[in-house]
Amino acid sequence: MSRATADSLRVDASRLWARLEALGEIGAVHGPNGERGCARLALTDADRDGRDLVVRWMTDLGMAVSIDAVGNVVAVHAGANDELAPVMVGSHIDTVRTGGRFDGNLGVLAGLEVVETLITAGVVTDRPVAVAVFTDEEGARFQPDMLGSLVYVGGMALEDALDVRAADDGARLGDELVRIGYAGPTPCPAAGAPHRYLELHIEQGPVLEDEGVAIGVVTGVQGISWTELTITGQSAHAGTTPMRLRHDPGFVAASITAGVRRIAAELGGTQVATVGRCEFSPNLVNVIPATVTMTVDLRNTDEAILQDAEGRLAHLCATLAAAEGVAVAQRTLARFEPVAFDPAMVDLVEATATALGHRTRRMPSGAGHDAQMLARVCPTAMIFVPSVNGLSHNIAEHTEPEHIAAGADVLLQAVLACASA
Amino acid sequence: MSRATADSLRVDASRLWARLEALGEIGAVHGPNGERGCARLALTDADRDGRDLVVRWMTDLGMAVSIDAVGNVVAVHAGANDELAPVMVGSHIDTVRTGGRFDGNLGVLAGLEVVETLITAGVVTDRPVAVAVFTDEEGARFQPDMLGSLVYVGGMALEDALDVRAADDGARLGDELVRIGYAGPTPCPAAGAPHRYLELHIEQGPVLEDEGVAIGVVTGVQGISWTELTITGQSAHAGTTPMRLRHDPGFVAASITAGVRRIAAELGGTQVATVGRCEFSPNLVNVIPATVTMTVDLRNTDEAILQDAEGRLAHLCATLAAAEGVAVAQRTLARFEPVAFDPAMVDLVEATATALGHRTRRMPSGAGHDAQMLARVCPTAMIFVPSVNGLSHNIAEHTEPEHIAAGADVLLQAVLACASA
Repeated sequence: MSRATADSLRVDASRLWARLEALGEIGAVHGPNGERGCARLALTDADRDGRDLVVRWMTDLGMAVSIDAVGNVVAVHAGANDELAPVMVGSHIDTVRTGGRFDGNLGVLAGLEVVETLITAGVVTDRPVAVAVFTDEEGARFQPDMLGSLVYVGGMALEDALDVRAADDGARLGDELVRIGYAGPTPCPAAGAPHRYLELHIEQGPVLEDEGVAIGVVTGVQGISWTELTITGQSAHAGTTPMRLRHDPGFVAASITAGVRRIAAELGGTQVATVGRCEFSPNLVNVIPATVTMTVDLRNTDEAILQDAEGRLAHLCATLAAAEGVAVAQRTLARFEPVAFDPAMVDLVEATATALGHRTRRMPSGAGHDAQMLARVCPTAMIFVPSVNGLSHNIAEHTEPEHIAAGADVLLQAVLACASA
Repeated sequence: MSRATADSLRVDASRLWARLEALGEIGAVHGPNGERGCARLALTDADRDGRDLVVRWMTDLGMAVSIDAVGNVVAVHAGANDELAPVMVGSHIDTVRTGGRFDGNLGVLAGLEVVETLITAGVVTDRPVAVAVFTDEEGARFQPDMLGSLVYVGGMALEDALDVRAADDGARLGDELVRIGYAGPTPCPAAGAPHRYLELHIEQGPVLEDEGVAIGVVTGVQGISWTELTITGQSAHAGTTPMRLRHDPGFVAASITAGVRRIAAELGGTQVATVGRCEFSPNLVNVIPATVTMTVDLRNTDEAILQDAEGRLAHLCATLAAAEGVAVAQRTLARFEPVAFDPAMVDLVEATATALGHRTRRMPSGAGHDAQMLARVCPTAMIFVPSVNGLSHNIAEHTEPEHIAAGADVLLQAVLACASA
């Protein structure tokens, strides 16, 4: 294969789109305004039907399909030298309950499209190309999220993963794998690491659309700090209690909510801060609440700045508690350090997209992805394409076909670059 | 009766306390820390048992008991001239589900204690003295609250009141009256107004205790403005949505909550402002909420200032909505203008308490009371006594015996002053 031949290769965007549509029909959820979403929770009958379809496509392409002990599916397309570690492309096909048709599915089906494009063009890469479907990325049914890729890279013991119970019906993950026929014979964690890992994913946020950029060059995954605050004051009558005698946890919760917005502004950059959950008790119109429980979600790509944000939150809580005469108890719900992708891989994605004529933007991922697990064992990068209105985990989730095609072509060219021996 | 004899009359505080204890045993709720609360919701079996006990006490005192069509009980102790309109003392004996033993009950039983004190001393007043028990003051089971006294003064049609359905079991108020034997033959609204109305009540707030004052001279009842705000923004991922692209109804709700505290401070005086109810949706740690529903409770004794507060709230909502790019819909849940008690009656309560050697404080009532309904038809006043820790509608509700005695003596002397022809 000449370099010129490889450079001119393009995916068949309509074939990829048709697979997205076909897979999206399994567990389809139709909304009142024409939305076409998807509900395929991990290891349900719908997930099995989706897996069966994807495995059939893999087999039809002549790929060697293996299923491992935690249900991860890896299909390998042979290269010129199968002694070499493969370039892996992957993502997940499980969805949240009110999911869309692109989140995860795009990364897997674009991988198949890359393989089919190579086959159709008669292009043989030096290295094998593997397409992976990781189990339970969403964590909507079995916690933690990214479970399949976490076990794949050795970050969680297989036995512990198999013993996880479903949030909905209490089913055991290992039993559900057997039930749907995806408790495979291949050992997990994997025996060897891929040569490189690439994941195409929808952005799930509004930045690319807002800036009119087709390709997001993902530099890493933000660190996450989740804190639950329980604020205890003095419940009292809204009419008979003068302002000066109040110990109002609702006022303190509001001041914290306003304060974390200020903290994000002060720290700038990628810092985000969100109060997503807030519950008043007793939650009555004419009663100053006794307690308020709320959460603060802080994220940053820089661990030091994330720790700074946590420190500012703690100081804010202490100051407000003293001023109002309430108690603020903190509990950490989750804490992950930031993940930085391999600089050379990030450069490769950027250069590839630019060469294909696309506007690009370097950006962190605000959400978690299987790629952050694979980054523990091999050089990794991600490619983002725009989400219409920034929506995801929503049946209105959509990405325009032109952006799907652009992302898949960047993936194809990056795979070609990585698959040279 | 000489003036000197009347001035030296005092209630039997231990007899009054014993009646409070006995009535409190009906529907008693015992807390884990020795709290002795009460649950006698309007027109339940417990309410009937409480009424039966009070009516027996009234009959034992030789009072003429009448029961009207909405279940209000009025017992009349004869005066020298029964052609004259009576001085009425009253309150209610229904409670909220987690109620105390003093709220309402004190006003009724102190009335009986006044009558028994007169009888024991052989003192005959010119005017009759009536003791009233009004139906469903709390509104905990049948809305609106203060229903019995509202119908009594002609503020609500009897038929409408009888058709009200219970919030808990859907029972019809009129049917429940019949069931418990308190659908009486006396017409309601009442044929004639009392000469004066006096109500002794616990403060249900912390002011008297905080200032070390035994007797609150109630100048009126605060006007109440309840607004429900529904804030609609753009639900989005907490990790993938930069701060600058957010339309966060939680942040706006927090800013309103902080803002109403500021409005109360700016207006000063008796202005209070409370956010008691706040609900996030979908209420997930990593999702910027789609909507937040909250309530704002504004109260003031001055209608013009209350309107000013409402205007400032509306302006605040509009400003915040525009800045954040969210919609804020307002709905009025309740609106009552302030009630000012009769100045001469207020002066009488103050002078009486002072003559008895008590420290007094003029204050509005932040909560609603039957007295505000009676104020529509006759000169009215209220006497407040301290609530320990400001607690009410709570099984830990308590008022010290010395304050019960002080309040009842002020009531006795004020009744004597009003009952002279």
